[in-house]
Amino acid sequence: MTTTTYTVTGMTCAHCVASVTEELGEIAGVTDVAVDLGSGAVTVTSDRQLDPTKVRTAVEEAGYQLVG
Amino acid sequence: MTTTTYTVTGMTCAHCVASVTEELGEIAGVTDVAVDLGSGAVTVTSDRQLDPTKVRTAVEEAGYQLVG
Repeated sequence: MTTTTYTVTGMTCAHCVASVTEELGEIAGVTDVAVDLGSGAVTVTSDRQLDPTKVRTAVEEAGYQLVG
Repeated sequence: MTTTTYTVTGMTCAHCVASVTEELGEIAGVTDVAVDLGSGAVTVTSDRQLDPTKVRTAVEEAGYQLVG
């Protein structure tokens, strides 16, 4: 299992959290996504190493920005 | 046609706008809903006088507050 925490900006409400969670959850290998709305911390658990580009793309497709 | 503008607080993003629009659109007689996210102004057009309680309930069911 791999767990990585990213910072995502632009999420303002529970709908935003749901959108990010849904997009990240569609990446192959992802088993859990936990979002802290206040801090923008998004913790992704997966059964393999994830391609950072896929993570960034998923966040952007949801309409938000990955920091870093 | 009747057009009334309400002020709704708590909307922070396009998802919130969509939720409020959807709930208000379900009230019988409503023909159009226009939301200005920045100001919270929600303009409802209907083919009859709306029961203010129904408008308030719809906004609250979406998860937001009607001012006044």
